[in-house]
Amino acid sequence: MQDALRLGVAGLGTVGASVIRLVQEHGKHLAVRCRRPIEIVAVAARDKTRDRGVDLSGYAWYDDALTLAHSNSIDVLVELIGGEDGPAEAAVRAALTSGKHVVTANKALLAKHGMEFAKLAEANGVSLNFEAAIAGGIPIVKTLRESMAGNSVTRVSGILNGTCNYILTRMEREGLSFEECLREAQRLGYAEADPTFDIEGNDTAHKLALLTSLAFGCQTSVDSIYLEGITEITTADIEAADELGYRIKLLGIAQRTDTGIEQRVHPTMVPKSSAIARIDGVLNAVAVEADYLGEVVLVGPGAGGNATASSVVADIADIARGDLMPTMGRPATELEPYTRARMRRHEGGYFIRLSVFDKPGAFATIARCMAEKNISLESIVQRRRAPRSEAPDLSADAPRPTAPQPVIMITYETTEADIKAALEAIGRENVIVGKPRMIRIERKPDAGTAQG
Amino acid sequence: MQDALRLGVAGLGTVGASVIRLVQEHGKHLAVRCRRPIEIVAVAARDKTRDRGVDLSGYAWYDDALTLAHSNSIDVLVELIGGEDGPAEAAVRAALTSGKHVVTANKALLAKHGMEFAKLAEANGVSLNFEAAIAGGIPIVKTLRESMAGNSVTRVSGILNGTCNYILTRMEREGLSFEECLREAQRLGYAEADPTFDIEGNDTAHKLALLTSLAFGCQTSVDSIYLEGITEITTADIEAADELGYRIKLLGIAQRTDTGIEQRVHPTMVPKSSAIARIDGVLNAVAVEADYLGEVVLVGPGAGGNATASSVVADIADIARGDLMPTMGRPATELEPYTRARMRRHEGGYFIRLSVFDKPGAFATIARCMAEKNISLESIVQRRRAPRSEAPDLSADAPRPTAPQPVIMITYETTEADIKAALEAIGRENVIVGKPRMIRIERKPDAGTAQG
Repeated sequence: MQDALRLGVAGLGTVGASVIRLVQEHGKHLAVRCRRPIEIVAVAARDKTRDRGVDLSGYAWYDDALTLAHSNSIDVLVELIGGEDGPAEAAVRAALTSGKHVVTANKALLAKHGMEFAKLAEANGVSLNFEAAIAGGIPIVKTLRESMAGNSVTRVSGILNGTCNYILTRMEREGLSFEECLREAQRLGYAEADPTFDIEGNDTAHKLALLTSLAFGCQTSVDSIYLEGITEITTADIEAADELGYRIKLLGIAQRTDTGIEQRVHPTMVPKSSAIARIDGVLNAVAVEADYLGEVVLVGPGAGGNATASSVVADIADIARGDLMPTMGRPATELEPYTRARMRRHEGGYFIRLSVFDKPGAFATIARCMAEKNISLESIVQRRRAPRSEAPDLSADAPRPTAPQPVIMITYETTEADIKAALEAIGRENVIVGKPRMIRIERKPDAGTAQG
Repeated sequence: MQDALRLGVAGLGTVGASVIRLVQEHGKHLAVRCRRPIEIVAVAARDKTRDRGVDLSGYAWYDDALTLAHSNSIDVLVELIGGEDGPAEAAVRAALTSGKHVVTANKALLAKHGMEFAKLAEANGVSLNFEAAIAGGIPIVKTLRESMAGNSVTRVSGILNGTCNYILTRMEREGLSFEECLREAQRLGYAEADPTFDIEGNDTAHKLALLTSLAFGCQTSVDSIYLEGITEITTADIEAADELGYRIKLLGIAQRTDTGIEQRVHPTMVPKSSAIARIDGVLNAVAVEADYLGEVVLVGPGAGGNATASSVVADIADIARGDLMPTMGRPATELEPYTRARMRRHEGGYFIRLSVFDKPGAFATIARCMAEKNISLESIVQRRRAPRSEAPDLSADAPRPTAPQPVIMITYETTEADIKAALEAIGRENVIVGKPRMIRIERKPDAGTAQG
């Protein structure tokens, strides 16, 4: 049997503690599988006194990750500190530079510095593995790096943020507002005290940038991602979607088009009958479409200490077995520059909700604006709000309500540029109150809709 | 760059032709990923004259696979012949013995000879890879062998046979009989001319035996699998299941219990709300439950030349990169003997359909037989067949129909032994016509129900 693979674990939060517990519990079993012992030799965190529920007595203690990264007592730095800069960045760079493998769950770090670190890892003949950084326990990095080696990927998409999916699921199930569900998510530990990063879609964008690089063999480009979070989703949107046979999910989508690769994160209406529509709560799901394989969908826990630790340890086992993959599945020098497909060229269906003044000709005006951009409507729902009673009297003599009325439209495939132009035109006509609500539809979330 | 990895492809059916097309089309891309060219140098099949839609002119031709397996011109034998014995067996044994890697899609071969071949491969320092043998394009072998390295698996289950799933889906959607759907499946090429192997569950059992070995680190034991096919499923079963909120799927299930590992293949009622219930047509799905990871579900194409070729090539790419895994994820010498959990100890809910004589006290007799085995009923549906009109007159004066009436019962958790004893007791009481119909229920197909 070979020498032990020696680990230094930097960061002892929930995931760090789970990794240590897993290695302690399944160490023998791992050694059999890898034909080599895997040993934690050192840990690094700021507060040595805190009880983390695991026995750390056998490990050397470091107050800072950078010193651990420089230490010659370890073969692998397991970076579980988090953050796109600061101690995590310094420690990872130091470890790679000094010829140590790195396993990390830090998507923000990789979305920002991944290209630099990938080159550094390859130049030093070491691995930079990050299965845990995308969709927690789901083995999507390995699937894209290894299982799809013979494929040309055309599309990758998924529910990549458990916090957002939890909030949307509860809003739908219980008719609660976004704010109420966010508070509940915070109370249950599914959302941070400052939830901005999750609910505005940045976390999903970081993961999508990495998926795009793995899937299409290009450099990461998180700044090129079209980004829209879930903070403006209302129960009215969710109810209207439900009525029309859709559910609303925050999706990250990357697809190959004629003009480049389209990357976008936004609330999306998906048919209730689709697989992705049934992914509820904190679960994650990733769908990959490729020329030979067709489509595979992977569903599982997107977060949580133990599920994330499972992915971290799988990455460590690969290193122990000597399976050193290039970070993005191809040598970093072979990654192509990212070519952005312009969002104006995006094609798809759209859900539009307007508050329309109840005056003669208002709807005709709206219809004309849509027609002028050649946008066809699949369905229109105009339901007069009952002024008082449950059953409105719609006879000609009944008093007409004067408040603006909600009008919902579902379009057939059109372009982002045309729908935006039509909505701007409607806005100029003084027939609606407030801003139009627009949500993109993926009718086949399991197959690409854009043709470039 | 290293020397090319030289392939010999034995068997030029649909999958063989797809593998050749894939390597021709994506060869450059594969070489970048593997940092090594992958080259087909020879092929073997019986009929050299047949047009297979791919250009074979650059490859040496062998009339038999065994000669190819012995040839020193290849590094890897890609066995796509099929069959548990015969030429496939001889060629694989010869290749492994002479120090060549083997990639195969042949589950029947591995279910029978897998343990011998695994030892042979490891003794000769070569790989025996078989991603394509289970669930076609779904990367379940890699997930179990590598991504779950740090986990103790508690349960693996899935829809592993597209033919059966296609038939059950059509029976449900269109109210057609089993025979009609089977003929349709044959017409569309989803079922063989002799479909026995698929519809009786043997094909699912072969795949399950391999999954069990990978998941639990034990030797394969296909003869220990409880086996029940779908040939006796009727539209009445499917309608009754639908009414009670269930769908019927042919599942392969292996789970750890206190007395050993339970392996079973049978038609199963799963709640409509479960993920597995939504897998329709020829799709496959595999769910794995483990201590750290929790549950992951992988969904994708279970068959088809291109999807299967995708898995075959992923296995080849692993070999090209030098990632040589033991066949079952652990050295063959470390695999434990398979310990069978007795099916009589299986615990779960049951669906029971009886044809009950319409005579006083018949139902009381049935209820007594169930109660004597402490079986509680979750629901009972006894619907009197309307003799002529749609709406039956159930008043005391109405003429009573004399034909036997269907009675459907859903039990709470009980054991296989108790439900069988109760049904036998009912059978002795002269209150029912024909054999009782019994279908096992997995209320949580996403989490184990058996406690041993």
